[in-house]
Amino acid sequence: MNGFSHFNEQGRAQMVDISEKSSTVRTAAAVSSVHMKNEVYEKIQSHDIGKGDVLAVAQVAGIMAAKQTSNIIPMCHPLSLSGVDISFDWKIKEAEVILHIKAQVKTKGSTGVEMEALTSASVCALTVYDMCKALDKGMVIGPTFLLEKTGGKNGDFKRELSEYNLEDQK
Amino acid sequence: MNGFSHFNEQGRAQMVDISEKSSTVRTAAAVSSVHMKNEVYEKIQSHDIGKGDVLAVAQVAGIMAAKQTSNIIPMCHPLSLSGVDISFDWKIKEAEVILHIKAQVKTKGSTGVEMEALTSASVCALTVYDMCKALDKGMVIGPTFLLEKTGGKNGDFKRELSEYNLEDQK
Amino acid sequence: MNGFSHFNEQGRAQMVDISEKSSTVRTAAAVSSVHMKNEVYEKIQSHDIGKGDVLAVAQVAGIMAAKQTSNIIPMCHPLSLSGVDISFDWKIKEAEVILHIKAQVKTKGSTGVEMEALTSASVCALTVYDMCKALDKGMVIGPTFLLEKTGGKNGDFKRELSEYNLEDQK
Amino acid sequence: MNGFSHFNEQGRAQMVDISEKSSTVRTAAAVSSVHMKNEVYEKIQSHDIGKGDVLAVAQVAGIMAAKQTSNIIPMCHPLSLSGVDISFDWKIKEAEVILHIKAQVKTKGSTGVEMEALTSASVCALTVYDMCKALDKGMVIGPTFLLEKTGGKNGDFKRELSEYNLEDQK
Amino acid sequence: MNGFSHFNEQGRAQMVDISEKSSTVRTAAAVSSVHMKNEVYEKIQSHDIGKGDVLAVAQVAGIMAAKQTSNIIPMCHPLSLSGVDISFDWKIKEAEVILHIKAQVKTKGSTGVEMEALTSASVCALTVYDMCKALDKGMVIGPTFLLEKTGGKNGDFKRELSEYNLEDQK
Amino acid sequence: MNGFSHFNEQGRAQMVDISEKSSTVRTAAAVSSVHMKNEVYEKIQSHDIGKGDVLAVAQVAGIMAAKQTSNIIPMCHPLSLSGVDISFDWKIKEAEVILHIKAQVKTKGSTGVEMEALTSASVCALTVYDMCKALDKGMVIGPTFLLEKTGGKNGDFKRELSEYNLEDQK
Repeated sequence: MNGFSHFNEQGRAQMVDISEKSSTVRTAAAVSSVHMKNEVYEKIQSHDIGKGDVLAVAQVAGIMAAKQTSNIIPMCHPLSLSGVDISFDWKIKEAEVILHIKAQVKTKGSTGVEMEALTSASVCALTVYDMCKALDKGMVIGPTFLLEKTGGKNGDFKRELSEYNLEDQK
Repeated sequence: MNGFSHFNEQGRAQMVDISEKSSTVRTAAAVSSVHMKNEVYEKIQSHDIGKGDVLAVAQVAGIMAAKQTSNIIPMCHPLSLSGVDISFDWKIKEAEVILHIKAQVKTKGSTGVEMEALTSASVCALTVYDMCKALDKGMVIGPTFLLEKTGGKNGDFKRELSEYNLEDQK
Repeated sequence: MNGFSHFNEQGRAQMVDISEKSSTVRTAAAVSSVHMKNEVYEKIQSHDIGKGDVLAVAQVAGIMAAKQTSNIIPMCHPLSLSGVDISFDWKIKEAEVILHIKAQVKTKGSTGVEMEALTSASVCALTVYDMCKALDKGMVIGPTFLLEKTGGKNGDFKRELSEYNLEDQK
Repeated sequence: MNGFSHFNEQGRAQMVDISEKSSTVRTAAAVSSVHMKNEVYEKIQSHDIGKGDVLAVAQVAGIMAAKQTSNIIPMCHPLSLSGVDISFDWKIKEAEVILHIKAQVKTKGSTGVEMEALTSASVCALTVYDMCKALDKGMVIGPTFLLEKTGGKNGDFKRELSEYNLEDQK
Repeated sequence: MNGFSHFNEQGRAQMVDISEKSSTVRTAAAVSSVHMKNEVYEKIQSHDIGKGDVLAVAQVAGIMAAKQTSNIIPMCHPLSLSGVDISFDWKIKEAEVILHIKAQVKTKGSTGVEMEALTSASVCALTVYDMCKALDKGMVIGPTFLLEKTGGKNGDFKRELSEYNLEDQK
Repeated sequence: MNGFSHFNEQGRAQMVDISEKSSTVRTAAAVSSVHMKNEVYEKIQSHDIGKGDVLAVAQVAGIMAAKQTSNIIPMCHPLSLSGVDISFDWKIKEAEVILHIKAQVKTKGSTGVEMEALTSASVCALTVYDMCKALDKGMVIGPTFLLEKTGGKNGDFKRELSEYNLEDQK
């Protein structure tokens, strides 16, 4: 065994057998972000007072993407997700505004939901970009990373934000 | 008109009418990246000598995702893509190794392919994470951004890498 | 709690957590209908004597749609359906003919299958419309509603057909 | 030829050949509705003042469903939709409140978009049901029907609302 | 260029650029087959006299699969199919009965529809297997191959059935 | 009961109720093959020494198809697959080279995974065809059949390769 769990004896990728793993409650939280100009932020905000809502569309996209994860990521196991929640947080800086996106996913199953949380946060960010790109194509997405996971025999994971200088990222 | 092209008169999101836009050749290139420990990089590389190949799977995922973009991003128009190409570039630093991912998409159609390129690069990076996460859950994805686009009446876009301190990002 | 189960603390939609709900057998039955001219009915029927069959195609569509429900309805949980059955009933009136469609869905899971039954009946009706629309674009679909559900802690539901004047609707 | 365009020589269903049809701008508008108790209406409305919005989610669902129509309706041709717009209208009556849903779809292609408009309106209504069903499972969807279409050699269609007593339906 | 059109400069797979290819009418026909015991054949046939129909379901599956081809085959271009037709032919032999399946696909586009025809015929055969497997799990599918194609600059293709001893296969 | 498990009382297809079946570990293995000219084989092999790899793409396609089986085969139950593995074997003959494909699928569920294994092997073979068809459109796919299955109350199945003259097929 070489540490990679996705390759079979012929050195080829496989969707690894998890039928021996026990079915337990598992959670994961991932974050992404969209860096935009103040001008874009203000348009999103002022629009939000009316009925339209960039974040509302982005969040629906993120939730639907979480359910599609095993169709998007080739070696990812299909899972019956029991819950998905996405929340937003604005950080206003001098030169730019950062929209922080946090996706939390829960399942009762035989494998973790890290990929569902990461895919959900990524698609949510991509949708914000799509809806605002007429104003600014220069927006930047990410960094995107796993914040924490619980459940499963490998133990919990909690990100050290000092690593990679991510303290600033949520 | 308030600059947002995705909202209708009721202030609600819509998939905007592009039937008046002319069908021309359009291209877009987007980049993403995966930041990993040296140890993960070495495992990917040494495995590559055998038949298995993390990047091969990630790249298939990226190409398939480009074709699914309008099903993943709610207000994105369906487009018959005429070509998708993904390339990789490794940057070995002291503390970490960065895998740079570039997705190039081409169409002959009535709207641009920025979202297809961004979605393709994002899913490619997510797949690399998925295949290596047994080694390190702390890998970081992104920044993900549009590098350039051509075609369409709004003119071409070429990223200024100095903005956002992205010189280092390909 | 405001009675809506699909909104999170930020007042945004979420896919609610059902990991605490017990996995039991649950069923739901929904009905829809297609109102058509006698002429359309007769063409469907006479064709049915041959090998082609409008209802056969519509019914396959309804069954496949039941399985796609969580990809179509944003906040709907993915469920491993254990059975789907669609049946038809013709009611011939003076001015029109009504095709009644009943979709029954069963699962062993943590949430109900009302949406699967409603989506299945709706798509079945839409497919009948699609296959006959060359004859008459004026056909009318519905009303579409839940007939009954069993299983789950909220108790069973059985429609009072007197409400909304639906006695006539199956 | 027997008037059905979806059956081949063996009397079986087929996706009919449209390669001879010319590519023109085509539009279709379809309507559906959700009949609910006053109590549900009030909860939707008061919530709308906050950030959550039943209609926002329903409308995203309707737009995404329009793009999926050819995957949901078996004999429906795939089409590159150029625009989708959904609007809402409330009618408050004594005994109930009716939410009217109108889906408008546009394409530049070789066949009409009636099914895309009907599917979009139906899925929008189903999503409203899903999001409010914790309050009332007795809501009724429909009638759902084509309001008008333009483009294509068969000429335009405009519904006579007097037929089927639909004057009241928008 | 090494004869493979699906690999890029890094030796990796890509979805090749077809934006220079002209949009013309293209057709392809592919065949598959299901080899079954007489007993299975008789059950299918006698059932056909009633309203149920194994072939009706299989044929809907084949048509829907043709439309999904570019989502199933990674490097396959998305195409707006203009027509799909599936026909069946029974050959009764002493030891077994062969169901021949022919899928014909047509498009007006920039690349051929060989994969759509082959995928359609394959899925049609798989569905026949699925619906009869309770009677006999030993049924055999195929050979599956391209019968002919027309359109495109590489010229037409017509199978020599003498090759591979396929005279017997339709 | 007439031996067909997919038809309801109206003689129409249904997705049969499996809620009474127990959830056990079930496996299935299916095989397919691609018959090609020596020239195609040599190109695949020599390329394999570089980084591109026809089989790598085909295998990803096969694994992703296994997860999509219930969306492709109409009466097939959705299942949470716990593992998928695809392996290849070359047989070099005088007149042709045969690529044997074996797909193994595992689940812990209420119904078997024969269709998942057969669909996976079929799509893997179709993808090999797609990637090499620029060299030879005359390649032949199959025979495709079930090799063995375990689990479930109907007992195990192991193919007699003497039947249908399949000794030569793996």
